[in-house]
Amino acid sequence: MKVGLVGFGRTGVKVASVLLQSKETYLEWVLRKSYRLEHRSVGEFLGIETDEPGLIYSVQDISIDTLLDLQPVDIIIDFASEEAIYNYGDAAAKRKVRILSAVSHYPPETIQKLKELAKETVVFWSPNITLGINYLIVVAKYLKKIAPNVDFVIVEEHFKEKKEVSGTARVIARELGLDENEIKSIRAGGIIGIHEIICGFPYQTVRLIHESVSREAFGNGAIFVAKNLMNKEPGFYQFEELLLPYFSM
Amino acid sequence: MKVGLVGFGRTGVKVASVLLQSKETYLEWVLRKSYRLEHRSVGEFLGIETDEPGLIYSVQDISIDTLLDLQPVDIIIDFASEEAIYNYGDAAAKRKVRILSAVSHYPPETIQKLKELAKETVVFWSPNITLGINYLIVVAKYLKKIAPNVDFVIVEEHFKEKKEVSGTARVIARELGLDENEIKSIRAGGIIGIHEIICGFPYQTVRLIHESVSREAFGNGAIFVAKNLMNKEPGFYQFEELLLPYFSM
Amino acid sequence: MKVGLVGFGRTGVKVASVLLQSKETYLEWVLRKSYRLEHRSVGEFLGIETDEPGLIYSVQDISIDTLLDLQPVDIIIDFASEEAIYNYGDAAAKRKVRILSAVSHYPPETIQKLKELAKETVVFWSPNITLGINYLIVVAKYLKKIAPNVDFVIVEEHFKEKKEVSGTARVIARELGLDENEIKSIRAGGIIGIHEIICGFPYQTVRLIHESVSREAFGNGAIFVAKNLMNKEPGFYQFEELLLPYFSM
Amino acid sequence: MKVGLVGFGRTGVKVASVLLQSKETYLEWVLRKSYRLEHRSVGEFLGIETDEPGLIYSVQDISIDTLLDLQPVDIIIDFASEEAIYNYGDAAAKRKVRILSAVSHYPPETIQKLKELAKETVVFWSPNITLGINYLIVVAKYLKKIAPNVDFVIVEEHFKEKKEVSGTARVIARELGLDENEIKSIRAGGIIGIHEIICGFPYQTVRLIHESVSREAFGNGAIFVAKNLMNKEPGFYQFEELLLPYFSM
Repeated sequence: MKVGLVGFGRTGVKVASVLLQSKETYLEWVLRKSYRLEHRSVGEFLGIETDEPGLIYSVQDISIDTLLDLQPVDIIIDFASEEAIYNYGDAAAKRKVRILSAVSHYPPETIQKLKELAKETVVFWSPNITLGINYLIVVAKYLKKIAPNVDFVIVEEHFKEKKEVSGTARVIARELGLDENEIKSIRAGGIIGIHEIICGFPYQTVRLIHESVSREAFGNGAIFVAKNLMNKEPGFYQFEELLLPYFSM
Repeated sequence: MKVGLVGFGRTGVKVASVLLQSKETYLEWVLRKSYRLEHRSVGEFLGIETDEPGLIYSVQDISIDTLLDLQPVDIIIDFASEEAIYNYGDAAAKRKVRILSAVSHYPPETIQKLKELAKETVVFWSPNITLGINYLIVVAKYLKKIAPNVDFVIVEEHFKEKKEVSGTARVIARELGLDENEIKSIRAGGIIGIHEIICGFPYQTVRLIHESVSREAFGNGAIFVAKNLMNKEPGFYQFEELLLPYFSM
Repeated sequence: MKVGLVGFGRTGVKVASVLLQSKETYLEWVLRKSYRLEHRSVGEFLGIETDEPGLIYSVQDISIDTLLDLQPVDIIIDFASEEAIYNYGDAAAKRKVRILSAVSHYPPETIQKLKELAKETVVFWSPNITLGINYLIVVAKYLKKIAPNVDFVIVEEHFKEKKEVSGTARVIARELGLDENEIKSIRAGGIIGIHEIICGFPYQTVRLIHESVSREAFGNGAIFVAKNLMNKEPGFYQFEELLLPYFSM
Repeated sequence: MKVGLVGFGRTGVKVASVLLQSKETYLEWVLRKSYRLEHRSVGEFLGIETDEPGLIYSVQDISIDTLLDLQPVDIIIDFASEEAIYNYGDAAAKRKVRILSAVSHYPPETIQKLKELAKETVVFWSPNITLGINYLIVVAKYLKKIAPNVDFVIVEEHFKEKKEVSGTARVIARELGLDENEIKSIRAGGIIGIHEIICGFPYQTVRLIHESVSREAFGNGAIFVAKNLMNKEPGFYQFEELLLPYFSM
């Protein structure tokens, strides 16, 4: 599976490192905004020995059409910003290159754009692409079906400086039909990220907990998704659709 | 749903209390070994106001055939000992009364007996009948399918005096294909019962935790199972079979 | 140590059970409001074999002066209501009988009354008399001295029906100089009671957690306190004063 | 407080970063084994703007006597290997430069060497220099004094590849007088490091938990220790001695 990565910020770098070390993906190139590091390779930059090219290009210097013709890929993985899709989207769709976006937020018109591209190619979007979080959302929803009267409370813990309520916690709340009051946000020290779904029964408690160890988790999530997109027809996909088949086996 | 309860020990009493207070079950009678409390009712004994009979009988004083003719039930719920099935099993099967056993251990020949009775009526057995534990086992197995390389470790915490490894933890280990070395048993103070399945990924950790608050949880589990058995054909059922349909909806 | 127990409600009964089974206390009597159970003994009522009298009296039937003369005690343990002290306080103080109150709330004028009684005898009051909670408060305060910049957040979990914020959590917040916004209250199912003090450092997290298993914990706390009051001079004491000596050894 | 750092491996680099960004320390130099990076500065290497020199020297190129004369420091912080003390120890002691070693293990003869150096200068050694762990050990020991019958169990969780039992867990066990059987080691995925001391009472449970977020925690621990050593007389110190004064205030 040949991969092109768009975005090389704090998360993008970690994702690139995971892609480079995975035997399931072959990292052709990284496309980033700034000039810095151009023409170097990810392997050299991160000190990882590899025979995958992983060349670093700047959007200021190469057009996406040229890049896709020069070094074709099976899938573009996007950890950049909400505008990036307007740069690479059409060129990818035209060539049936799959699009996997892990951008954390899109305005409605960009989601519309994704859906248009999905007429031509496979388009996937998830604002939190870790396997663990998405798994917990799915199984918590099943628990709600099994035991409709269970009390759900969501606790999310993050570092002191994080101002707003965790976006992931809000997605969990929405998926479980909970009011945002049922999200308890804890801010203390340097906690990377913990999400807990407390499921209260009259005489027992179930706790579903996700703890982030590091941003590389996004890279592993992206690989899981990419593999599951390979055999899909053009269309717009979200994480839950990729997980559900595992539950009906 | 008319219920007869077999067994009125420490757990049986709690289960009776839940059955009596549930609007989904109608407790006809309790059958116990000893003479004590005979002819009193569960409601009177527990100080619960109810119009359900809940009469307490002793096996020393009434035959199960007489009892089933006198006060017929839809299901027998068994929280007694491993021999009890030999007392009521045939009489129940003959009358197509469903059998729900929550006895924690049976020798192989008794399991064989259950399966023979299952030719005539619905027979269910679960050594741990809480909804929470059985839900966690099912979803942990799904996680293993989704992410075959995840590291599973089971931690179980109980009161200091509990000698052996938790039977529930051993069931979890078996279901996940784990060696018993992967069960860590903690014995301290008066902990009622905690089971945790730690699911270790390279860059994230998922924790699936069940905490027992009190033995009444068994009563709620029994009601959930009983409801799900009402529309079943004769046969031998276990908890997982009742849960799986919720996951393919 | 001869003990008289005032109050025989839901918590009082559990405390009586612990006192009766402890070798460190000798339960002379229980004084309660209602007539029910009068002249029976705690041992008989709870089905505990013992040679301690544990006679159950009603305030409607015997004066506290008569009771203290008839069956003198070293300490009165009060798990009743906020008015009870006005019934037994003066009679106890006059006889130098120690007073240990675990009543959860007193109006200011009753606290004043306690302090007046403390001129004559040893008077102790704690609104949460478990050893675990009081230990955690003391050690969290030490942590604040050691690392003044640590971020503290208090999480308390209780059963769904509990309306108000946990009084214990409010005491913890006050002792740590925290705003009540730093208390996160979780209400779900039948959780008995969990208090967690999260201590966030830039690169590490310390968690101090207390989990209640059952109300008997109050009995053990009362015994710990009673023992520590035996050699004290008349005066007004709180839990922290009894714990601090252990920290300077 | 002028600091010289010995060791610039995986942990040393993180500690250097914390020292450089702390207003309480002034990083004069780093001394490392290899030639790599020589004459560069820590600030330049880590991309941190600073006016602290933080020059990187190699032991192959400069003698410690020359270095200490050229760029004198108040304290040497050692995150290198167990042999490093033989390189810088005598030179430091002669100049009354304090020595703070965070090396995780020393053979008995090296501990003897530390104690000899301690006749001349302040020498401190701690195999785990995080504030959180040392705080938990101290407060757990106090709990044992307060409640001698509490059941202690230690749980330590680390990444799958970690072979041996955590050295920190063994220190906790030794300090609490526990058998090593009371340490439960969990190995799963990429868990950085969690240590939990479970304190079981008959009717309540106290949990004292330490979670590592990143190696920088060692840097903050070193700063805490360094500050507390500034006003000390020559002698051999361990972490507990620095913490105890906070508990008698």
